[in-house]
Amino acid sequence: MIPSQMKVFLVIFLQSYIVLAYDPDPVHDYCIPREEFTSIFLSCKNSSLVTVDDFVYSGIKDPGNYKHSGFSSIPVSSTAFPGLNTLGMSFVRADFDIDGVNVPHFHPRATETAFVLEGRIYSGFVDSGSRVFAKVLEKGEVMVFPKGLVHFQMNVGESPATILGSFNSQNPGLVKIPSAVFGTGIKEELLMKAFGLNDKEIAKLRKKFVPQ
Amino acid sequence: MIPSQMKVFLVIFLQSYIVLAYDPDPVHDYCIPREEFTSIFLSCKNSSLVTVDDFVYSGIKDPGNYKHSGFSSIPVSSTAFPGLNTLGMSFVRADFDIDGVNVPHFHPRATETAFVLEGRIYSGFVDSGSRVFAKVLEKGEVMVFPKGLVHFQMNVGESPATILGSFNSQNPGLVKIPSAVFGTGIKEELLMKAFGLNDKEIAKLRKKFVPQ
Amino acid sequence: MIPSQMKVFLVIFLQSYIVLAYDPDPVHDYCIPREEFTSIFLSCKNSSLVTVDDFVYSGIKDPGNYKHSGFSSIPVSSTAFPGLNTLGMSFVRADFDIDGVNVPHFHPRATETAFVLEGRIYSGFVDSGSRVFAKVLEKGEVMVFPKGLVHFQMNVGESPATILGSFNSQNPGLVKIPSAVFGTGIKEELLMKAFGLNDKEIAKLRKKFVPQ
Amino acid sequence: MIPSQMKVFLVIFLQSYIVLAYDPDPVHDYCIPREEFTSIFLSCKNSSLVTVDDFVYSGIKDPGNYKHSGFSSIPVSSTAFPGLNTLGMSFVRADFDIDGVNVPHFHPRATETAFVLEGRIYSGFVDSGSRVFAKVLEKGEVMVFPKGLVHFQMNVGESPATILGSFNSQNPGLVKIPSAVFGTGIKEELLMKAFGLNDKEIAKLRKKFVPQ
Amino acid sequence: MIPSQMKVFLVIFLQSYIVLAYDPDPVHDYCIPREEFTSIFLSCKNSSLVTVDDFVYSGIKDPGNYKHSGFSSIPVSSTAFPGLNTLGMSFVRADFDIDGVNVPHFHPRATETAFVLEGRIYSGFVDSGSRVFAKVLEKGEVMVFPKGLVHFQMNVGESPATILGSFNSQNPGLVKIPSAVFGTGIKEELLMKAFGLNDKEIAKLRKKFVPQ
Amino acid sequence: MIPSQMKVFLVIFLQSYIVLAYDPDPVHDYCIPREEFTSIFLSCKNSSLVTVDDFVYSGIKDPGNYKHSGFSSIPVSSTAFPGLNTLGMSFVRADFDIDGVNVPHFHPRATETAFVLEGRIYSGFVDSGSRVFAKVLEKGEVMVFPKGLVHFQMNVGESPATILGSFNSQNPGLVKIPSAVFGTGIKEELLMKAFGLNDKEIAKLRKKFVPQ
Repeated sequence: MIPSQMKVFLVIFLQSYIVLAYDPDPVHDYCIPREEFTSIFLSCKNSSLVTVDDFVYSGIKDPGNYKHSGFSSIPVSSTAFPGLNTLGMSFVRADFDIDGVNVPHFHPRATETAFVLEGRIYSGFVDSGSRVFAKVLEKGEVMVFPKGLVHFQMNVGESPATILGSFNSQNPGLVKIPSAVFGTGIKEELLMKAFGLNDKEIAKLRKKFVPQ
Repeated sequence: MIPSQMKVFLVIFLQSYIVLAYDPDPVHDYCIPREEFTSIFLSCKNSSLVTVDDFVYSGIKDPGNYKHSGFSSIPVSSTAFPGLNTLGMSFVRADFDIDGVNVPHFHPRATETAFVLEGRIYSGFVDSGSRVFAKVLEKGEVMVFPKGLVHFQMNVGESPATILGSFNSQNPGLVKIPSAVFGTGIKEELLMKAFGLNDKEIAKLRKKFVPQ
Repeated sequence: MIPSQMKVFLVIFLQSYIVLAYDPDPVHDYCIPREEFTSIFLSCKNSSLVTVDDFVYSGIKDPGNYKHSGFSSIPVSSTAFPGLNTLGMSFVRADFDIDGVNVPHFHPRATETAFVLEGRIYSGFVDSGSRVFAKVLEKGEVMVFPKGLVHFQMNVGESPATILGSFNSQNPGLVKIPSAVFGTGIKEELLMKAFGLNDKEIAKLRKKFVPQ
Repeated sequence: MIPSQMKVFLVIFLQSYIVLAYDPDPVHDYCIPREEFTSIFLSCKNSSLVTVDDFVYSGIKDPGNYKHSGFSSIPVSSTAFPGLNTLGMSFVRADFDIDGVNVPHFHPRATETAFVLEGRIYSGFVDSGSRVFAKVLEKGEVMVFPKGLVHFQMNVGESPATILGSFNSQNPGLVKIPSAVFGTGIKEELLMKAFGLNDKEIAKLRKKFVPQ
Repeated sequence: MIPSQMKVFLVIFLQSYIVLAYDPDPVHDYCIPREEFTSIFLSCKNSSLVTVDDFVYSGIKDPGNYKHSGFSSIPVSSTAFPGLNTLGMSFVRADFDIDGVNVPHFHPRATETAFVLEGRIYSGFVDSGSRVFAKVLEKGEVMVFPKGLVHFQMNVGESPATILGSFNSQNPGLVKIPSAVFGTGIKEELLMKAFGLNDKEIAKLRKKFVPQ
Repeated sequence: MIPSQMKVFLVIFLQSYIVLAYDPDPVHDYCIPREEFTSIFLSCKNSSLVTVDDFVYSGIKDPGNYKHSGFSSIPVSSTAFPGLNTLGMSFVRADFDIDGVNVPHFHPRATETAFVLEGRIYSGFVDSGSRVFAKVLEKGEVMVFPKGLVHFQMNVGESPATILGSFNSQNPGLVKIPSAVFGTGIKEELLMKAFGLNDKEIAKLRKKFVPQ
């Protein structure tokens, strides 16, 4: 029997999550994290326990469920697909209903290449000089969003659309502008000054984006 | 005399700017870019022409001029201070009038450590899970803003305030959220859906941030 | 008129190609190489000359032409799609006729994530302990091939198949084992010893892979 | 109760310290190391336990105590300020009494930018061609010391002086030349030959720098 | 006494091996992994327990035993020489009997510089355009094999030969082409198509390279 | 004829030297710099002009000439051996007469592995906690000197000795402590205070190390 102090010890571990991983230049062919509580120690599975299924991901064959804005995404970082661990890549499937919008967002740790699987997508990004580069992409076209820059997409076709995005980080991160700015507790006065809005306008925006 | 085609050739060069520089792991002690048109070829100054003044920057002794929001900043990347070239660092001086605001922004290519030189500054950042970490910093305190995350500041003291920010990139980049989102030509319909605003509200915001 | 020595000077340049680019951590938002001979100087296009089309690639909407092995690929590195320059990513479209084979190969500078756009593909890689990880992938599945490891694919379905591969380098490189080993002038005696084959067997293999 | 073997097991851990951390390209927004014995497993605190205080450092508001050479420094690496962990930056406050000296030293893992908070500081570095770059810095000036090069400072003003140094590593390291060379057990004969000094001269230097 | 569940817990650990290590830019002077089961937690030895012997390797004074192809190699990665951990380097001693062959192989994670300690070695590599660069090296000459490219060697002198190879990774990896391609379970049909060989020829090759 | 302004233009180029090269992660198989003035533009030789001799170095078969301290070294960076360009490695041959000394020095940009080709060498390094790790190495032993740490060597055998050092940078840099500290124009008063020496003692040291 595991003594009770030990249990506490293990429980604390289970609440933490794997950490010091970096994208550049692994020193192993691959490193499939050990499952369950051992994974928190950052150890790789013994290679004899690794199987081909550790390197295959089957969870983006179908679209996710649309959320309010007619948009659905399934981001696949190394958390969802442990085989990516230490390999410096990840990906996302994004589905758009007609008029569906992927709100302005950015990935703090990766460049993205977005391939249009289906549909016509208005797609673009803003560089750090506040210049926008946007156009309508057709099926089979690819757009690149440079690392850390704000980008956005909207289905402007007459049927659902789908994009496959690829990233050069195992965990690119995702910052959605509307919720990051208006859905968090940033001091109201600061936001009023920053956006030139009055308190009612800020309150309206906050109401939309602060999680309930 | 330089023949005219050659002139054209040189002029084209002068319009371009230095490019393929990367932050990690230089292979020289330093590399002061050659001045004038030779600099566009990415060559370093011959080391016999390098002086101590190439490694000293004197342009942030005094604050810049406040802009409308009671805020002024002097960013010093390797463009302003060529001695930083290839060395993976840069810095910024930011001055705040009373109530002055540094609007929500992020640096796509660097972490920042911000040291309060003077005053009391409300300061914070938002992580990629839309959680805000903010508090009032006193003179002599330091806050770290992780790479690529949205952060913001406001002078909440009763006198002007000043911050010295340091970056781990020679060119961290700067994306100001209000102008990146509302000051560029992103399709109006997309912004309406993304922020849940109507066309008049978007138009009002655009008017403020689109450069005239 | 450009004087003749100058012409020689330029011609020499035109024979060389762009070079010192590295994948990690750019110091600009992007860097579209200047076209024609100025590009050899590694300068970026002046940003005012950059357009959205620099960031969009339209050349993989359709498959390429099958080669002898019922396989066709369109690799898109930063040479074909200059917008990728400095951004650390690239991609490839690979099409397979029935029974078509992508011969054992590896990319010396990148991990690959391969997404099945159409068909059923037997797909696998060999780790540095000579263990193979292979299985049949269905449409919508993704397999990751760790950096630098030998991998291979074969259409085992009853209709043509297509894969979209993404890489975490702007120029991953490609080494096809059969032609790298048997299609080059490696000393015959060495190959005989290495593969345990006699001179006739080696000669047969060479005949197939040495370019005519 | 934790059984005794387990205790031994834990004690061993407590004697070790956190390890495999690297500066480039984190894969998380941040990673606050877990405190006490769990920290030795390299795990991050559960993000729900992270607070704004993890990202703020208040320990350099005031100078440290001067040591014999009229110099005091408070280096702040990720050990002292865990919020820096994985973020690739750290800093130091250095105070100089009149004539106080920061002896020739270098940081094996970082470039430093040094900002003069107060006073007049003679400041310089030596490149790998043994050329010195030195001058007197005034308040508000910044000097950059390239990665790994020997540098030094001395208060040449008529009042105490202070510098804020920033580094592009969470743990830049510090090698002070006098104690590294004369304060360690390097074979006396080697030092005599290397510096052209006799045994008495070396003994005198050693006496000063070998810790008692 | 360690309770039985705990034992299981430890045993699982002992079966796993150290993992998340990356080559670039350490944040400590060095990190000697702790021995026995603590090493699996990636912790460094307490520096007070580190001795000079942790940084010295004595296992390549003499050649290893020749294998069938008149070749013997002693690769020294951070597994064999823990002092290399986090330092981004490793090495190999290779000995060649007369006519001995180092079969075509590559290192997925490192460039190699090979110094001829003794003898005359035919040595070369193939670039990703399938061009071979090979020549006979004399004692004291050095050849560089770029990262990830296929290379090979053969003793063409009249006495045994020896090479010292150095790598810029603590674990460069090794993929031997003959065994990686013919010694693993890659589908026979794929190999037949890839190499233009019939089933008997493939079976013959397999017999040689599949481990018994 | 090249017009005279053009000549000036070219001459300026010839005085500068190649620059922005970084060690990590090349995007080409190799890049042999173009010779003569084109090299200053950082372009690679057209691959059709590259030969095997670009990848072989023959200049360390024999020792260099001993200098005053019975020591001779031939450092081979990418300047001496252009084939190393972008590949992240270089090396050095060091020869020691009896009692010959390699003075305390460090490489700001690389770890070194030192292999004893001949003789018995007292060899060591100092960590950033001023702890020395030193011992006598025999022929065939290897010692690792972590990146940026001070190290030193002395022939303690009864015959000449030789070492082959390898580095994980194409240009590791070299800072020799005696000449960096006493052979440069660092303010005398600072050195007196730093080393606890009087003006005569400093003058004596300077006389030895300042180049005439």
